Amino acid sequence: MILKGFQEERLDAEAIRMFQTLSRRTRGDILTMTTLAGCGHPGGSMSSVDIYLMLTSCANVDPNDPSKPDRDRIVISHGHTSPAVYAVLGRMGFFDAEEAISTFRKAGSIFEGHVEHRIPGIEWSTGNLGQGLSAGCGFALSGRLAGRHAQIFVAMSDGEQTKGQVAEARRFAKKYALNNVTVIIDYNELQISGSIHKVMPQHTKALYLADGWKVLEADGHDPKALYQVLREAVHTEDTPVAILAHTKMGQGVPFMENEVTFHGKTLNAEQYRAAMEELGLKDDLDRYRKLRDGFDGEAGSGQSAIRNPQSAIVIDTGVPRTYAPEEKTDNRSAFGNALMDLGGLNCGRTDRTPIAVLDCDLGPSVKTGDFGKAFPDYFFQGGVQEHHTATLAGALSKEGIPTFFADFGVFGVDETYNQHRLNDINETNVKLVCTHVGLDVGEDGKTHQCIDYIGVMRNLYGYRIIMPADPNQTDRAVRYAAGEPGNFFIGMGRSKLPVITNEEGAPFFGGDYTFRYGKADLVRDGKDAAVISMGGMLYRAIEAGERLAEQGFSVKVLNFSCLSAPDVEAIREAANTGVVITYEDHNVYTGLGSIVAGVIAEQGLRTRFKRMGVAEYGVSGTPDALFRIYGLDVEALVEAVIEEVGRR
Amino acid sequence: MILKGFQEERLDAEAIRMFQTLSRRTRGDILTMTTLAGCGHPGGSMSSVDIYLMLTSCANVDPNDPSKPDRDRIVISHGHTSPAVYAVLGRMGFFDAEEAISTFRKAGSIFEGHVEHRIPGIEWSTGNLGQGLSAGCGFALSGRLAGRHAQIFVAMSDGEQTKGQVAEARRFAKKYALNNVTVIIDYNELQISGSIHKVMPQHTKALYLADGWKVLEADGHDPKALYQVLREAVHTEDTPVAILAHTKMGQGVPFMENEVTFHGKTLNAEQYRAAMEELGLKDDLDRYRKLRDGFDGEAGSGQSAIRNPQSAIVIDTGVPRTYAPEEKTDNRSAFGNALMDLGGLNCGRTDRTPIAVLDCDLGPSVKTGDFGKAFPDYFFQGGVQEHHTATLAGALSKEGIPTFFADFGVFGVDETYNQHRLNDINETNVKLVCTHVGLDVGEDGKTHQCIDYIGVMRNLYGYRIIMPADPNQTDRAVRYAAGEPGNFFIGMGRSKLPVITNEEGAPFFGGDYTFRYGKADLVRDGKDAAVISMGGMLYRAIEAGERLAEQGFSVKVLNFSCLSAPDVEAIREAANTGVVITYEDHNVYTGLGSIVAGVIAEQGLRTRFKRMGVAEYGVSGTPDALFRIYGLDVEALVEAVIEEVGRR
Repeated sequence: MILKGFQEERLDAEAIRMFQTLSRRTRGDILTMTTLAGCGHPGGSMSSVDIYLMLTSCANVDPNDPSKPDRDRIVISHGHTSPAVYAVLGRMGFFDAEEAISTFRKAGSIFEGHVEHRIPGIEWSTGNLGQGLSAGCGFALSGRLAGRHAQIFVAMSDGEQTKGQVAEARRFAKKYALNNVTVIIDYNELQISGSIHKVMPQHTKALYLADGWKVLEADGHDPKALYQVLREAVHTEDTPVAILAHTKMGQGVPFMENEVTFHGKTLNAEQYRAAMEELGLKDDLDRYRKLRDGFDGEAGSGQSAIRNPQSAIVIDTGVPRTYAPEEKTDNRSAFGNALMDLGGLNCGRTDRTPIAVLDCDLGPSVKTGDFGKAFPDYFFQGGVQEHHTATLAGALSKEGIPTFFADFGVFGVDETYNQHRLNDINETNVKLVCTHVGLDVGEDGKTHQCIDYIGVMRNLYGYRIIMPADPNQTDRAVRYAAGEPGNFFIGMGRSKLPVITNEEGAPFFGGDYTFRYGKADLVRDGKDAAVISMGGMLYRAIEAGERLAEQGFSVKVLNFSCLSAPDVEAIREAANTGVVITYEDHNVYTGLGSIVAGVIAEQGLRTRFKRMGVAEYGVSGTPDALFRIYGLDVEALVEAVIEEVGRR
Repeated sequence: MILKGFQEERLDAEAIRMFQTLSRRTRGDILTMTTLAGCGHPGGSMSSVDIYLMLTSCANVDPNDPSKPDRDRIVISHGHTSPAVYAVLGRMGFFDAEEAISTFRKAGSIFEGHVEHRIPGIEWSTGNLGQGLSAGCGFALSGRLAGRHAQIFVAMSDGEQTKGQVAEARRFAKKYALNNVTVIIDYNELQISGSIHKVMPQHTKALYLADGWKVLEADGHDPKALYQVLREAVHTEDTPVAILAHTKMGQGVPFMENEVTFHGKTLNAEQYRAAMEELGLKDDLDRYRKLRDGFDGEAGSGQSAIRNPQSAIVIDTGVPRTYAPEEKTDNRSAFGNALMDLGGLNCGRTDRTPIAVLDCDLGPSVKTGDFGKAFPDYFFQGGVQEHHTATLAGALSKEGIPTFFADFGVFGVDETYNQHRLNDINETNVKLVCTHVGLDVGEDGKTHQCIDYIGVMRNLYGYRIIMPADPNQTDRAVRYAAGEPGNFFIGMGRSKLPVITNEEGAPFFGGDYTFRYGKADLVRDGKDAAVISMGGMLYRAIEAGERLAEQGFSVKVLNFSCLSAPDVEAIREAANTGVVITYEDHNVYTGLGSIVAGVIAEQGLRTRFKRMGVAEYGVSGTPDALFRIYGLDVEALVEAVIEEVGRR
């Protein structure tokens, strides 16, 4: 009975018997788990469980080595079917089934409400629908880059097929010939509000066909049929395949079948007993309840007990480039140049981890074009499909490829925030580089002026936010982020910027300077007031300092390029001047000023404090005109410093 | 020559001549405008301009009464073709064409970089691609609710067809038989990175057909063909129609044709002269440059000079319900009940403005089910298509229908932030009600615990954020938001909550209480310390205060339900105790604590200050267990107060 890899032409009798036994048992586990927890999603779990059983039995995955690099990847897109996933993986030996059943959804248990990527056998945390196929595409690409030949299976619900991101992912898979991707849809024709044909009618099959996929159908509860159709999908090498697996919500327990209330409602004790009897299984609730009561996970030990290892990253970040003071360029170009260096040092070599670069039809602006030409195998054009591309970046990077997703701020941050949130939950390795942030975007106007990138990204605990002040700091920040594991956001404006220099006129971020996360840069010292700035505003702050010096004021100018870890000591020293002013072309309530205010209030620092930033949506105009209109030009900063010093 | 309403069977010779003249002239305007501004998007404008000319000529729109209620709606989804839109509307008399040409993209001009809804003839600001069809659906629904029979035309680019939201909108239009919607696609087969067939191949026609639309094709530069195909679309009454209008980027100037660089690059002076010669037009650059130089818009006067009026809203918000202290219910149910009252008072009556309610397949949880049953004509089920539904809510509400979009926090905020951002720019009237916010979501785990709703929504200047503390405050806040123009976010947790009472045991938010935006509620007075809380945390704060009273501490407890306008005076009084603690189950860096910190720092208030909130993604578990794990239970608050008072 060799099932792995779908090599046998058909399932033998023994395999079918084994499958049927497990199908019944895992159904019992689902019911025990959810009834015990008093919450969770039994209906869809009973509908999907046979699919999970077949995939886990026949795909190249190994409970004894769940992280082996050449394994097939199984992505569960509809993460609320976690009871079925835990039941199957538990019964297959990926972990102790009893622990999963008894601790499901109890605080401190790894067996959380929606599938959780730290559990062996689970590749990707989901729960927000519609993102799983994009993740599958990411795994397919990382496999291609690593020269592996694994299959990628993406299990999805029928209700989530209407999410636009699914269509985006479908097109991407076709474009890049990700023919090792198989989608299998739990097609039970029910969602929370009723029949999928009434809630939001769509011709699922026609849409996959229109996007160039092959579509197969089978009874999703019949092991023979499921095996055959998956086998055909795996052996289809010229296109990705979608399988409509016809199923029943609540399958296996007659009174649950096609009853949509059981989507998110669990059985009570009496219903549970009746259901277990239907399944020919014994009522084990009391025993499991004792185990559950005995589990004290609040100390948090359960969370770290099991964990999938991440691949090691070996990357050469090279020698920084230094732009000379006379060389006026933009941070975007410095980013593009750094990408080229990183590509040359790491792409296409057996001893290094390559980087990957993703773009959404903005190459000429976000400066990914040269990389795309020089390293076409490591560059992926996502088109005008930002949601898909953001998730793709996450999954690709999770497999150990530092992945640069370059986009305008409004698309890379505002449009795709929730995709990055799920990436962050999945502990990915995304380097989100957004150009066109700040009022500095100028003439393109309010729809394109991303003035909330800190305010939005700051909510994600794992993304470290960097705003480099000039091309030199950009170069160093990009190399730093490439070499550090974890998620980063790097923001930059549109305009060309002067190179920041020290008082001797040499590049401030050249020479001995090393980018270190969380360290503020004291660009000019002073004792009458402190201006804290970042990004493209820094040179204006320096200019204001110089004008103020002419009027006899000694102003400290600080650069905060690391927004996720404010340099408390630097703020304390700034407060010692008695006047602190934050100066940014970001939303005044949610950016740098808000971060500095938090430190001042929490540390109880006694200082005058003023936030300068943007308090309404900006209009179209040159950056300089906008800075004047919104009171953010150098003159306004000079006046503010004088006024605050006067009031001190 | 009666063109309006596509009544004539075909265009007559005079109409064709007029069209051809205007087609040439508006092309000249596009080039003058963009060359003068030195930025903007000439290529796509030259490609779309004939479509705009035909629509504006033949649709029921009137330059002399651009806001008449029964007008046809023309939505421009690819807002970067603004030069073409401004040229056409200007030449048609909607405003002074010379002003548009001369001030395009100059600070203070209404003629911004992307189409701007304040300009007569423009219904919806766009610029972020893929949202226009959803807006068109919103206009179609509002027309239906108002008993109007206007046509809705949505002009789109071909490149944006890949955005998933377009597919979502297509399905919605079909489901609700929005057969007066016509999409017309500027099918020039080029996008920034090259051919649409290479950047992200898709079978646009097949996809519209698969979603049940009728598809027509025509030469998008031939007036006769354009007229015929639009006429057929308008007279198709059994399905929405999409038109592929075959066009050429840069059409009309041979050296610009099919040259993708002109997507976002303008002509230099020499190219401009050559192009105008090709078009048989005179070079008017100098004259316009003088006009431009003479325009000083930085005072901001241009912004308010022109503005579309909004419809008057007449709504009865009824008599508040009061939940008694013994009645433990959840804020969600109070919301559902208030919706029922609002429906009964305002829906289906000729003397009142109705409300509309949108749901994304979560009715049983977000409590829109009763409303949907009672007022089926005012309830719209969007399915698992949040992006579309968020934009739909915006456009529907912009037409004067207060629109409640109810969803879980992670979908209504995190997934659809950028749609709300564009709604806000369009000055809509959305009431975004998100249930399932906070760590209080519990067992569903981190993917569903929306702990960033303030941190994210706070970036939108127009959305007023409300977090009601109990069912009584929820009832009053919902009625308040229904009656007030503008955008609101109302957040609520999942759990049942005790009714907040005053010290005499009567409902605090009953009796004389009136919801007033920006006013903090002093729930308990005290002098040793102040706890500032909100939402479902307030009752815990009160409980902590009671325990502290037993230990001899007198604690002030404040409720901040209005997060967009912190009550500075209340914070000042809190600071007078010498200890301020914010207490929330939201991200500790970006929520209530961050807002209060901003006030403390800016006002220079001298007080100890501590923020209690969530500093990492939450696990699955009961809310109480999670509060213990993350140090947010009542005990932890009691300890924190004692510690801070001791350090004061």
